[in-house]
Amino acid sequence: MISITDAFDGGNIIVKNSGDPSRIELEIRKDKDSDFYQWFYFKLAGAKGEDCRLQILNAGNSAYPGGWDDYRAVATYDRKSWFRVPTLYRDGQLAISVTPKHDQIYLAYFAPYTMEQHHQLIADMSMRENVRLDVLGNTLDGQTIDLLTVGNEDPAGQIKKHRYWVTARQHPGETMAEWWMEGFVDRLTDTADPVARALLNQAIFYIVPNMNPDGSRRGHLRTNAAGINLNREWQSPSLEKSPEVHHVLSHMRKTGVDFALDVHGDEALPYNFIAGCEGVPSFTEKRDALLQSYKSALKVASPDFQTKYGYPRNPPGKANLKICANAIGEEFGCLSMTLEMPFKDSAISPDQRFGWSPERCKLLGRANLDAMLQVVGELR
Amino acid sequence: MISITDAFDGGNIIVKNSGDPSRIELEIRKDKDSDFYQWFYFKLAGAKGEDCRLQILNAGNSAYPGGWDDYRAVATYDRKSWFRVPTLYRDGQLAISVTPKHDQIYLAYFAPYTMEQHHQLIADMSMRENVRLDVLGNTLDGQTIDLLTVGNEDPAGQIKKHRYWVTARQHPGETMAEWWMEGFVDRLTDTADPVARALLNQAIFYIVPNMNPDGSRRGHLRTNAAGINLNREWQSPSLEKSPEVHHVLSHMRKTGVDFALDVHGDEALPYNFIAGCEGVPSFTEKRDALLQSYKSALKVASPDFQTKYGYPRNPPGKANLKICANAIGEEFGCLSMTLEMPFKDSAISPDQRFGWSPERCKLLGRANLDAMLQVVGELR
Amino acid sequence: MISITDAFDGGNIIVKNSGDPSRIELEIRKDKDSDFYQWFYFKLAGAKGEDCRLQILNAGNSAYPGGWDDYRAVATYDRKSWFRVPTLYRDGQLAISVTPKHDQIYLAYFAPYTMEQHHQLIADMSMRENVRLDVLGNTLDGQTIDLLTVGNEDPAGQIKKHRYWVTARQHPGETMAEWWMEGFVDRLTDTADPVARALLNQAIFYIVPNMNPDGSRRGHLRTNAAGINLNREWQSPSLEKSPEVHHVLSHMRKTGVDFALDVHGDEALPYNFIAGCEGVPSFTEKRDALLQSYKSALKVASPDFQTKYGYPRNPPGKANLKICANAIGEEFGCLSMTLEMPFKDSAISPDQRFGWSPERCKLLGRANLDAMLQVVGELR
Amino acid sequence: MISITDAFDGGNIIVKNSGDPSRIELEIRKDKDSDFYQWFYFKLAGAKGEDCRLQILNAGNSAYPGGWDDYRAVATYDRKSWFRVPTLYRDGQLAISVTPKHDQIYLAYFAPYTMEQHHQLIADMSMRENVRLDVLGNTLDGQTIDLLTVGNEDPAGQIKKHRYWVTARQHPGETMAEWWMEGFVDRLTDTADPVARALLNQAIFYIVPNMNPDGSRRGHLRTNAAGINLNREWQSPSLEKSPEVHHVLSHMRKTGVDFALDVHGDEALPYNFIAGCEGVPSFTEKRDALLQSYKSALKVASPDFQTKYGYPRNPPGKANLKICANAIGEEFGCLSMTLEMPFKDSAISPDQRFGWSPERCKLLGRANLDAMLQVVGELR
Repeated sequence: MISITDAFDGGNIIVKNSGDPSRIELEIRKDKDSDFYQWFYFKLAGAKGEDCRLQILNAGNSAYPGGWDDYRAVATYDRKSWFRVPTLYRDGQLAISVTPKHDQIYLAYFAPYTMEQHHQLIADMSMRENVRLDVLGNTLDGQTIDLLTVGNEDPAGQIKKHRYWVTARQHPGETMAEWWMEGFVDRLTDTADPVARALLNQAIFYIVPNMNPDGSRRGHLRTNAAGINLNREWQSPSLEKSPEVHHVLSHMRKTGVDFALDVHGDEALPYNFIAGCEGVPSFTEKRDALLQSYKSALKVASPDFQTKYGYPRNPPGKANLKICANAIGEEFGCLSMTLEMPFKDSAISPDQRFGWSPERCKLLGRANLDAMLQVVGELR
Repeated sequence: MISITDAFDGGNIIVKNSGDPSRIELEIRKDKDSDFYQWFYFKLAGAKGEDCRLQILNAGNSAYPGGWDDYRAVATYDRKSWFRVPTLYRDGQLAISVTPKHDQIYLAYFAPYTMEQHHQLIADMSMRENVRLDVLGNTLDGQTIDLLTVGNEDPAGQIKKHRYWVTARQHPGETMAEWWMEGFVDRLTDTADPVARALLNQAIFYIVPNMNPDGSRRGHLRTNAAGINLNREWQSPSLEKSPEVHHVLSHMRKTGVDFALDVHGDEALPYNFIAGCEGVPSFTEKRDALLQSYKSALKVASPDFQTKYGYPRNPPGKANLKICANAIGEEFGCLSMTLEMPFKDSAISPDQRFGWSPERCKLLGRANLDAMLQVVGELR
Repeated sequence: MISITDAFDGGNIIVKNSGDPSRIELEIRKDKDSDFYQWFYFKLAGAKGEDCRLQILNAGNSAYPGGWDDYRAVATYDRKSWFRVPTLYRDGQLAISVTPKHDQIYLAYFAPYTMEQHHQLIADMSMRENVRLDVLGNTLDGQTIDLLTVGNEDPAGQIKKHRYWVTARQHPGETMAEWWMEGFVDRLTDTADPVARALLNQAIFYIVPNMNPDGSRRGHLRTNAAGINLNREWQSPSLEKSPEVHHVLSHMRKTGVDFALDVHGDEALPYNFIAGCEGVPSFTEKRDALLQSYKSALKVASPDFQTKYGYPRNPPGKANLKICANAIGEEFGCLSMTLEMPFKDSAISPDQRFGWSPERCKLLGRANLDAMLQVVGELR
Repeated sequence: MISITDAFDGGNIIVKNSGDPSRIELEIRKDKDSDFYQWFYFKLAGAKGEDCRLQILNAGNSAYPGGWDDYRAVATYDRKSWFRVPTLYRDGQLAISVTPKHDQIYLAYFAPYTMEQHHQLIADMSMRENVRLDVLGNTLDGQTIDLLTVGNEDPAGQIKKHRYWVTARQHPGETMAEWWMEGFVDRLTDTADPVARALLNQAIFYIVPNMNPDGSRRGHLRTNAAGINLNREWQSPSLEKSPEVHHVLSHMRKTGVDFALDVHGDEALPYNFIAGCEGVPSFTEKRDALLQSYKSALKVASPDFQTKYGYPRNPPGKANLKICANAIGEEFGCLSMTLEMPFKDSAISPDQRFGWSPERCKLLGRANLDAMLQVVGELR
């Protein structure tokens, strides 16, 4: 008997009909108090050896239906290695085909990064040398907003260290952002790594590996427990609707910001790319040069990164200041960027079996350290 | 600033006052729709190096206040190694003393076994040879009731294999029961282990590692999502209130039961012990002898097990047939037992640092295989 | 181009002709200054996908040609998992058939346990609580004779603890003996294991995981660097020819011996069995009863052990007192035994893929702790 | 009783006097048939808690006595983590001070990379996709000369791939060279790494992780089993004296060489640096530019690398063509370099606890891939 369930950390699916393996009918649940949906994550049991076709009936009205073209779902048996499976988007429905080799298989939009994994990451990091953990406040569901601070002020008091802020997963369904974080933080805190050591001689890092714990745990695509898209809250965050942004922004104002990177995933574009904040009023040529430096350095460090494809540049003064990267760029007058990774694959360096994957996210996270070191001397 | 939260898989605490580290006031949340409470599990951040005293104000009215005497709470930094910390029960309050060495520490009633760990266990086992996973049905919260079947019918059709049923964690706060399961199932499915191989020549195992997923995830002590104590539901389980028992019992009726072991933890007694079903009407001397055989064999296999201390024997005919071991013993006329492990320590083999621990639970789970093999020839 | 070499820790082969994969001609090298040979261990490269037949030309004159019947060689790619390959003994030659799946494959008589593994075992154990490492002296090749002492005298001075001596691998080609040791010592030093803890309350263990480092490193079957069979040296060991025995026996005389177990492998018999020292002059009925107790307890603990097949009992007074178990049994008047494991498989519990294997050796080592605990009260 | 021995894979020490822990007198053994010596590696047992001072009496006449200034020996208990210990060079003797925390400690000139580790590395790599293992021939001691080939010809036949040759550890005591290799090869064969993937689109790698297995196993500093310094054999290698070089050079002539890197350690300079082959007759400005490109790119990729300190440039035409990098640069007219790492520490990025370490070697090996990708377009 076929069993499908999403009743676990980060799960999302509604079963409409599972009587016939060759046409299992599903729907994605909307984010609470919101119309957004596109993230799915569930397990299928009882179908070993059967040719299953899972039909997501409401794919056509999801947050970004354009994202389904050329998209392939991910699957795993061991909850560690996620591979791609044949997927077809047609007539507003997404059809996933799989013939399970074991009694149970998990399927998802992208390899999940659960809150339990988050808690393990925080625990591991909080025991490393040179790392400090602070709870900035609580989410609406009562979860902690965890900040990792890596590095210390110069004991001799001679070097004024730069403030690097790195945030991820405002949109909880963009799990690649926290995989990126795992690679990034692991390298940054590796006391043998020369790039990390050189950076920490000149900078202190403020890192929020998960900006949206509530959405993550609830299996949301884009919003928090109040149905709020946090990346539209940076102009006037509130404790009632967006405590995550409120607390992080308050702490930014205490520390100052010299560099800001906000990490995301993009449903449609099969590329890794960076969007700057060219449209903010205070943008300058110098900051544009710095932005180009960073992008160039990252391209050198990672052939999975490119600068040709991406979002169109905001015209001068036309930036939406509710968005994190813009708000911070404007308020702190610093290099402020959004990094986007694909749900699909990197078209300039495709991988047939895995597509864009957790392992590749982590390597891109590592590579960003190289670029961060390249620009550290130009920041001010 | 001190932060205390239980907003994660299996967490349970209410913060009344965390302003003063030397007197943090807490309460344990009741199981939903129930008066039971005793399980707690939370994390404390922001108190590195501070002498903290955490006062559980409502300990005196918990499900079994007698359990607090000589009890010590467990703590961890890395979420893997759980050690005991000084704990004092006085005037109806439980006081836990700890001076965290890191920015974050987790505290619990016993080392938790989260639903995410459960899902990993199921995934790992479902990929092993000789193991079959079935989802028997769903809980009220929509989680799966997972059954592992280990072993196969004799291909030659000559040996009629015995049916061993092993269930655990009807009471979700008794997490030691699922640690026990991890050791038990790991050994049973080890294709090099001679005891496992010999047993599987003569038996098929039906294993429910977690009878109460909803209570586990909700951080309950004793009940499911409807506030029902599953171990009082075996006479007339219902899909509305106790689907967990309903589905498992239905499957037992399909397979038959020659041996039943239900694994629990006991708040008060500092011993590992077994309770039989001597009070059921159908009890016989032969079954009593079998019970004693099993207990003796287990005592040989594990010096952490003993037969001196335990629950008083039910007088003949006085057994509560709502209880799992009694109901099964009566219906199937087989050896049917409840295994209890301590929350505290094993007083005959105490361990100052760890008390009764996950590692010891797993070893006791392994040792039960030895006893199971000893009685296999006497079962019918 | 085919390459075959034994030039590594524990290797043994001579290449006579490797021009034709379908008939590679090999010989086993004799132990230095000795006529013994049967151990082989080499790697074969450059034959991926080729049907290779490796012919050991001098198998017929090896130390125990009867061992080749029904024997199958072991192979590995990853140096961790060793599986059996088709092997045929005919006309005094041993033919091994293999079609390598990778560019390199290792083949051996039994899964090797190299000196580097030994050094790692000693390093790991020497860091555990409750363990002491002593170097008793040096071998002829200058290697250390390592003794692990586990357990301590009763601090209260009330319990006189029994002296358990466990030795292994006098015959270096019997590598199963050190795999056994790895399982045995790992469990004995596990501070959570109740059997180990109970034993250590009443006993101190003196353990020599490898009696013959020189033979091990040289790839010998049965002798040390002087071509001496150590298990014929216990009546009058000498620093010149058998310092290994000399130093161990000297230390035994300092500590006393209440229990002795010497671990070996047997080329011919497909069984795990124990030989006592019934033929020593001082043998008594009480010691015979103890011997039977031990064997019975081990049979309970491990279905891979049996008591039906084995060496014939020595008639009273006819024991060879040059042999370890006999010499110790006679001198110390204690329970003294030789444990034998098969090179082939355990015929009462066969495993088609792996035969008798490192994993099974380790589990048998673990099971011996159960038997040791059963007899501890009867030793004196 | 103190025990000191070097009788293991790669060991080297002679004990002159170990009676007094406060003055243990040692000597380093010369390479066989050679006067070179400086590598030491031994274990010390029986000195737990004692303040030991180990005096290497013949340090003053070692191969490069200038290397002892500011040098600190490395030590380990677990054979995995090697830390630095206080060391003083005075009056031609090297004094190492250590108070062992356990019954056994290993001490060495640099963290060893044994032949058993080499065999494991080869086995691991030979099972990875995209890797081919060839045995080029045998050493004088009968060991294999292992070549890993990573990458394949372009299946479409349109890209003529560059030939990258990377060799290491001609001098066996320079174990950092094989640690470097481990990091390098691990990244190169990581199918998720974008730098590795980009490189393999344009290049095929020929890798000899250990040019000198015999010296490695014998515990030599600089020579093979015939006492020959392989890095002076590239003009006319012979099967009799330098089969290692003979076989590798023969294979180079078959494949061609577009890029060559030979990895070493330097006793004296506390820096990572590269020596080019500027002194070879065929050197050109274009090749000099390429050399500078590579060095610059590596400096970007790793702040542990620098270009200020190093060997003096050979004047035009004055290169010693017996040396690997020069011989290959001259014969193949390609970019050909020697990479040197310190035995001591990297003075531009010092680490008090570990100095230059295996972990840092591996990271530098990884970083070289970045530099290799930067120059791939300029090679021809």
